[in-house]
Amino acid sequence: MNLILLSPEDLTSPSSAVITDLRRLTHIKNIHGAAVGDTLKVGMLNGNMGKGTITGLGESEISLALDLTEPPPAALDLTLVLALPRPKMLRRILQTIATLGVKKLHLINSYRVEKSYWQTPFLEAANIHEQLLLGLEQGCDTRLPQVHLHKRFKPFVEDELPALIAGTRALVAHPYTPNVCPSQIDYALSLAVGPEGGFIEYEIALLQKCGFEAVHLGERIMRVETAVPYLLGRLF
Amino acid sequence: MNLILLSPEDLTSPSSAVITDLRRLTHIKNIHGAAVGDTLKVGMLNGNMGKGTITGLGESEISLALDLTEPPPAALDLTLVLALPRPKMLRRILQTIATLGVKKLHLINSYRVEKSYWQTPFLEAANIHEQLLLGLEQGCDTRLPQVHLHKRFKPFVEDELPALIAGTRALVAHPYTPNVCPSQIDYALSLAVGPEGGFIEYEIALLQKCGFEAVHLGERIMRVETAVPYLLGRLF
Repeated sequence: MNLILLSPEDLTSPSSAVITDLRRLTHIKNIHGAAVGDTLKVGMLNGNMGKGTITGLGESEISLALDLTEPPPAALDLTLVLALPRPKMLRRILQTIATLGVKKLHLINSYRVEKSYWQTPFLEAANIHEQLLLGLEQGCDTRLPQVHLHKRFKPFVEDELPALIAGTRALVAHPYTPNVCPSQIDYALSLAVGPEGGFIEYEIALLQKCGFEAVHLGERIMRVETAVPYLLGRLF
Repeated sequence: MNLILLSPEDLTSPSSAVITDLRRLTHIKNIHGAAVGDTLKVGMLNGNMGKGTITGLGESEISLALDLTEPPPAALDLTLVLALPRPKMLRRILQTIATLGVKKLHLINSYRVEKSYWQTPFLEAANIHEQLLLGLEQGCDTRLPQVHLHKRFKPFVEDELPALIAGTRALVAHPYTPNVCPSQIDYALSLAVGPEGGFIEYEIALLQKCGFEAVHLGERIMRVETAVPYLLGRLF
């Protein structure tokens, strides 16, 4: 937690807040070893960041005087389309994309996505929200990514994806193509990453028809949780 | 497991092998759904890769005829120096660096590395080896990374590191520097990555004295397991 994230319900006035939940209380007390008068790095969810000065420190609540004048870091100009990963990996990937500044994530079905993955409680809105908060707190950002779920591949790619990628260059990571993934780009991007084992040829063909270029990352096959930061480090 | 890795003790002749351990047996039977006559992607630890044709498929062993003529993918021209991460993260990072082609890893102490991390059984040679194998099997590589442990920061940096980084450009990831991390390099590199919370100023100064340049990755603070693939994707 490199940033204490506040939500509107924490506010007691436009410039003061009270934290009462155990997770943030424990963190501030234990990790920061905080005392009245100390300042913490604080941000308002979907708002500015800045300083929170501790004005009260009780057993079950911490009061803060807020000075939030800095905008959050710039978002990546990216729409990320990801085949739904296995539940354990999903949680880490939600944190990672929030940390790295992805704001538009579409989790989609694919032939090699196991059906059971769609049943995981980690896909419930509250649980997605929780992992995104952890990622924002790590990365020092306040703007919550938007996560959309699409349980059917073909209708999504044919009916929704064309509008989502309009005005962007669209790439799909695919081992079996001669084209190398570009690097250090300065334009709006859409990026699709398949499941473990990759998209099948039919899916690649449908994505290409929709406007995606297949690009490879070399000979090595990465797990999705490795490929996502690797790709973002390379591209942006 | 995108590659079945063999070790010398699996060989029954220079061109045949028998697999008897439960992990690889189960994988081949369940995931590949293999039958006699099928070919699998196979590699010899620290040797060539190629095809293994199933010649026998029993309850407790699988026999393979080997045709291993392809060299493994090129290694990264990199010496990676990493502050020892927490045990759970260590296992994933060992897999990740093996998948991505890192061959020289030095795990070091640092002020913000908790002393207890050095006590983890995951640092035993057999356990490190196991995670590296998983990473090689994922990335389709055969060459085992060399992992070295250094429990004392100052003697390592002053007495050993100068020789290790000789002939390379040496970078240390550090948020508080004006210099941006380079990208898409084509020279030998040494890269140091600190613990959660970063290297302290004294450590950065000692690394700089040793020849490291501090470079930043933007405003966002990444977990080490995110920063490593992010950096490698950007640099190579």
